[in-house]
Amino acid sequence: MNYQLIMEEVASEVAPLKGKGKIADYIHQLAMVDPDKFGFALNFLDGASFNVGDTDERFSIQSISKVFMLTLAMANVGDDIWKRIDVEPSGNAFNSLIQLEYEKGIPRNPFINSGAIVVTDILLSCLTNPQEELIQLIRNISGSPTIDYNPYVAASEKATGYRNIAMANLMKDFNNIENKLDDVLDLYFQFCSIEMTCKELAQSFLLYANHGKNPLTNDKVITKSHSKRISALMQTCGFYDEAGEFAFRVGLPGKSGVGGGIAAILPEHYSLAVWSPRLNPNGNSLMGMKALELFTTKTGTSIF
Amino acid sequence: MNYQLIMEEVASEVAPLKGKGKIADYIHQLAMVDPDKFGFALNFLDGASFNVGDTDERFSIQSISKVFMLTLAMANVGDDIWKRIDVEPSGNAFNSLIQLEYEKGIPRNPFINSGAIVVTDILLSCLTNPQEELIQLIRNISGSPTIDYNPYVAASEKATGYRNIAMANLMKDFNNIENKLDDVLDLYFQFCSIEMTCKELAQSFLLYANHGKNPLTNDKVITKSHSKRISALMQTCGFYDEAGEFAFRVGLPGKSGVGGGIAAILPEHYSLAVWSPRLNPNGNSLMGMKALELFTTKTGTSIF
Amino acid sequence: MNYQLIMEEVASEVAPLKGKGKIADYIHQLAMVDPDKFGFALNFLDGASFNVGDTDERFSIQSISKVFMLTLAMANVGDDIWKRIDVEPSGNAFNSLIQLEYEKGIPRNPFINSGAIVVTDILLSCLTNPQEELIQLIRNISGSPTIDYNPYVAASEKATGYRNIAMANLMKDFNNIENKLDDVLDLYFQFCSIEMTCKELAQSFLLYANHGKNPLTNDKVITKSHSKRISALMQTCGFYDEAGEFAFRVGLPGKSGVGGGIAAILPEHYSLAVWSPRLNPNGNSLMGMKALELFTTKTGTSIF
Amino acid sequence: MNYQLIMEEVASEVAPLKGKGKIADYIHQLAMVDPDKFGFALNFLDGASFNVGDTDERFSIQSISKVFMLTLAMANVGDDIWKRIDVEPSGNAFNSLIQLEYEKGIPRNPFINSGAIVVTDILLSCLTNPQEELIQLIRNISGSPTIDYNPYVAASEKATGYRNIAMANLMKDFNNIENKLDDVLDLYFQFCSIEMTCKELAQSFLLYANHGKNPLTNDKVITKSHSKRISALMQTCGFYDEAGEFAFRVGLPGKSGVGGGIAAILPEHYSLAVWSPRLNPNGNSLMGMKALELFTTKTGTSIF
Repeated sequence: MNYQLIMEEVASEVAPLKGKGKIADYIHQLAMVDPDKFGFALNFLDGASFNVGDTDERFSIQSISKVFMLTLAMANVGDDIWKRIDVEPSGNAFNSLIQLEYEKGIPRNPFINSGAIVVTDILLSCLTNPQEELIQLIRNISGSPTIDYNPYVAASEKATGYRNIAMANLMKDFNNIENKLDDVLDLYFQFCSIEMTCKELAQSFLLYANHGKNPLTNDKVITKSHSKRISALMQTCGFYDEAGEFAFRVGLPGKSGVGGGIAAILPEHYSLAVWSPRLNPNGNSLMGMKALELFTTKTGTSIF
Repeated sequence: MNYQLIMEEVASEVAPLKGKGKIADYIHQLAMVDPDKFGFALNFLDGASFNVGDTDERFSIQSISKVFMLTLAMANVGDDIWKRIDVEPSGNAFNSLIQLEYEKGIPRNPFINSGAIVVTDILLSCLTNPQEELIQLIRNISGSPTIDYNPYVAASEKATGYRNIAMANLMKDFNNIENKLDDVLDLYFQFCSIEMTCKELAQSFLLYANHGKNPLTNDKVITKSHSKRISALMQTCGFYDEAGEFAFRVGLPGKSGVGGGIAAILPEHYSLAVWSPRLNPNGNSLMGMKALELFTTKTGTSIF
Repeated sequence: MNYQLIMEEVASEVAPLKGKGKIADYIHQLAMVDPDKFGFALNFLDGASFNVGDTDERFSIQSISKVFMLTLAMANVGDDIWKRIDVEPSGNAFNSLIQLEYEKGIPRNPFINSGAIVVTDILLSCLTNPQEELIQLIRNISGSPTIDYNPYVAASEKATGYRNIAMANLMKDFNNIENKLDDVLDLYFQFCSIEMTCKELAQSFLLYANHGKNPLTNDKVITKSHSKRISALMQTCGFYDEAGEFAFRVGLPGKSGVGGGIAAILPEHYSLAVWSPRLNPNGNSLMGMKALELFTTKTGTSIF
Repeated sequence: MNYQLIMEEVASEVAPLKGKGKIADYIHQLAMVDPDKFGFALNFLDGASFNVGDTDERFSIQSISKVFMLTLAMANVGDDIWKRIDVEPSGNAFNSLIQLEYEKGIPRNPFINSGAIVVTDILLSCLTNPQEELIQLIRNISGSPTIDYNPYVAASEKATGYRNIAMANLMKDFNNIENKLDDVLDLYFQFCSIEMTCKELAQSFLLYANHGKNPLTNDKVITKSHSKRISALMQTCGFYDEAGEFAFRVGLPGKSGVGGGIAAILPEHYSLAVWSPRLNPNGNSLMGMKALELFTTKTGTSIF
C-alpha cells in the first residue's frame, strides 16, 4: 500500500475544512498558534515512516501527555493505581465536578483532568523528581532529547485553572490526594505544557503498538498487560465526550488534546499523530478527526 | 489452534468460581434458573463451531436483544436514529434517571434501557408488526425457527419495571417518544423476554463479524458501516458500568444481559456466546467474564 | 384599619400589571381562563370579611389542594406521615426527578408533586373513600356544599402528566408507594382539579389561622401542633422555588397554584386568598404576589 | 411571665440530653471544647435580660457570623448583592458543589458557605478594611469592645477547608469572584473564627428584632427592609438542611453554627442565644434546638 500517497490524498480531502472549528483560546499561548496548521505523521513498527504537512513543528500536546503520565505511574506502582482511579468512561464533559462528588472523589478514569491530577499525586509520592523522569521517558521513546516543558504555558494554565484547582481540593477533601495541593497542581500544569512535533508523537506512541517495549531500543518500558490496559483506556476514554463517535469513525485507540493534536495506534502495526489546532464542539481537532477517519477507511485498518 | 481443547481448559479453570456471584432475582422466572449452568459456544465465519457445557439450553437473553433491536432499527431508518439517541458511554448505572433529565430526554446510547425504549418507539413507528419482524430477523440469522418470546417473562418484567416506566414517561415529557406509552412499554418488555441457546446466540452474532451480511445466506442485513457502528457501540457501551474493564480484560466488542449471557465478536473472524447465571456486582455474568478473559488470553485474540 | 379601602388601593395599584406574566397553558381548561381576572378576599377569625374583584368566581385551585390533602392525612395518620416524606425545602424546580433519585424516593416535602403523590397514597391506604372525604372536608371548613372536582381538568392533567407519572413509578421502585399506581395517580389528578372561589378559599384557610379548629363550628379538625406544622411547611415550602422571596416580600405562610391562586394566613388573625391567572417565571401568580406584598406592607402585618 | 424561671426549667429539662450528639472535631480548637457546656441568654428590646448557665464564656460562633457579614454587605451595597447570590433555600447539605455547578456559580443563599464566600468577596471589593469593619460592627451592636477573631481557628479552618476552596475556585471559574482567591479565602476563614459569649450574641441579635436599629444607641445600622430580608433568610435558610424542622419546632428566624451556638429572634420583642457544643446529625446544636423548642412552647411565642 502506498501510504505516502494515501496520506497526501487525506490531506487534500480535509483541506476544504480549513477555517472550520474554533481554536482553544483560554490561554494566550494556545490562542496565538496559526489555526490552519496541519501535520500528519505515520510510523510503522518495522521502522517505515511517512509524513505530510507541518510534522516538524512543535505544538502543545496538552492532554495527550496524560498517556505518558499514566505510563510512568504504571511502570512504578503497577495496578495499585486502580485503588484510587476507576477505568470507566465518564459520560460527561471532561471536567465535571458533579460526578466526582457523586463518586466520593474517585475519578472515573486517568484521562479526565481529575484522574490525571491523582496520577500526578501518585508520581509525586513515588518518584524523587517526577518532572524530570516524565520528560526523560518521553525523550527516550521518541528519540528526541530536546523535547521539553513550556514554562509559560504551565504558568498560564495555572493562572486560569480554577476548575482543576476546585477538583483537586474536592479530592483532597475526600482524602484522594496525598501531597501538598500546590505541589501537585504545579506539577500537573507542567505536565500539560509539553511540546512535541507530530513526528515525535507518532514515534513515541509506537510504544503502545509494541506492547510496552521501546521500539528504538527494544527495552521493556511497561509490561504487555499494562500496555494493553492503556490501549483499552484510550479506546474507551481517550476523546472526552466523543469516545463512542471516535470508536465508530476511526476505530483506533487514541488520545486527543486541546492543542489540536491526536495520537492513535493500530496495535502490532503502526502509530500515527495528527495536528490541526481548530477544534470541534467536543474539544477534539476537527480536521484531525476527519483525517483519521479517511485514513482508516482508505487503508481498511480499524480494530472493528 | 485446538479451539475445542482451549474451551475445555477455560471451562475447567472457571469451574472453581461456581457459587460466586448472585443470580438476578427481581423476577420469578430468572430467580428459578439453575445458577450453576455454564455454556460456551464459538462460531467461525468459515463455518467451524465449537461447544462446551450447556450450549443447547435456552435462557433469557435479556439486554442482549438490544443489539438485535438496534440492528432492525438501522436496517429500517438508518442513521436517522441518532437524532434521538446519542452514541456515547453513559458513565453511570445502566438505568439512571439523572442523566436522562440532565440531557433533556436524549438517552446516552441505544444499549441502556432508556435508549432501547426509544429504539422500540422507532420500530413501532416504522414497522407494521415490529414484534414479528424482530423475532424473524433473529430466526433468520441464527437459523433457528423456534426462537421465541417468553410471554411470562414479559409480563413479569412489566409488573416490576417501574424504573423503565418512569424513564419512558420522562422521555415522553421531553417529546422523545412518539407512540402511546403502553404500546411502547409492552413491546419493550416483549423484546427483553427472548430466549436463545448459546449456539443460537453465537451463530446470530456472526452477522457483526461478517460486516452485516447473514453468514448463513450471504444476504446483506445491514450495511458494513452500520455493522461497524454497532460493533463500536458494543465496544464502548455493551457492559453497563464495566465497559472499560471488559475492554481491557477481554478486548472484544460484545453485549451482556442480566440473564447471565454474553455475546461477543472478533471482527472478520469469529463470534462467541457464554452463559452462566450468577452475576458480578456490575450485573455481568461472573464466570462468563472470566471465561472470555481466559479465552482471549489463551488464543491471543483481542482487538488490542 | 379600613381593610376594604386598603384592598381597593391594592387592587388599583396592581392593575397596571395586567397583561404581564403568562397563563398556564399545558392543559386546555387552564389556557381558556380569562387571564385578566383578579379577585382578593380577606376573612378574619372574628367573622369580618372583605372582598375586591372576582371573588365569587370559581377557578382551579390546583396545588393549593395539597394543603387540604396534607390536613386530611395528618387528621388520620398523624406524624407517621413523616416516615415517608421529609419536611425540608426542595431547593429545585418543583418537579425534579434528580432529587428524588438522590434521596431514594423520599420526597423533600408534601407540597412538591412527588410529596403530594405519597400523601395521596397514604389517603388511599387509610380511608375507604378518600376522594369523597377530601371534598367533604373542604365543604365543611368553607361552608360551601357545592365545591367539587372538575373531571375534565383531572382527565387533562392525567393525559399530560408524564413527569408526575414518572415520579410515581420511581417512588414505587423505591417502595414508597403502597397502592396500585393507576389508582394513586387517578386520585392525585382528581385532587388537582378542585375548583373554589376566593371567598371559599379564604374562609377555608381560616382553619390554619385558628390552630386547627373549624372557625364555622369550632370543631377540632386537626391538633394545634399539626396546624402549626402545616403553617411552618407553607412558610418554607409553599411557593415552589420562590419560598425565600415570598417570605421576604409577603412574610406570611401560604400556598400557591398554577391556576393563579394564592392562599395565606396571619396566624391567630386572618386568612386571605387572591386569584389572578397570569404567572411569573416561578409559576406563582404575578399580580397575586404583588397584591399580597402591598397588603402586608400597608397593614404592617407580617410574621417578621 | 417569669422568664428567669422558665429558662431554668428549660435548662433542667434539657440536662438529660447531656452526652448525646457529637462535637465538631474537624479542627483541633473545636474538638477541645468541653462538650457539656450549656448557656442560654435572652434579651428584650426594653432592656430586660435573663441568663442561665455558661453565658459569659466565649465560643466559636462559626456560621452565625454569616448574618453579620450579610448585614455589613447590605449596609454598604444594598440589594445589588442579589445579582450574585440567590435568596432561596438550598435543599441539600450546606456545602454541596453539585448545586453550585448546576446553577452556574450562583449560590442559593448567603448563609451557605458558597454564598458567604461571595459576600466576603463583595466586602473585599467595597471596603478598605473589611476585617476591621466587621469586628467593629459586632462590637458596636453587642457593646463588647473585646470581641475578636481567633487567628488559630482561622488558620486551622484554612488548613482543612478544601471543600470551601473548591467552591471558591468553581465560582471564580464562573466569574462570580472578583478578588484574588487567596485574599477572599483568608478573609472568609477569619470571619468564621469570631468568638462571642451567649450574652454578647443575644445582645447583638437584638438588631434584627429592632428592624435594623442598634438597640444600644438607636442608630440605624441597616434599613427596616434590609433587616426584614435578613430575618426572612434566617427563617428559610438558617439551619442547614433542618430549616423546615426548626420552623416547626421553634418557629423563630435564627442562625446556627457548628461551634454549637444558635441565635434567634422574635421580631419586635426579643433575641436569644443558646450554646451547647454537641451537634445533631444535621450539624445543629442538639441541646440548643431542644432548649429553643421548649422555650417557645412554654412562652407561647412563635411566629406561627
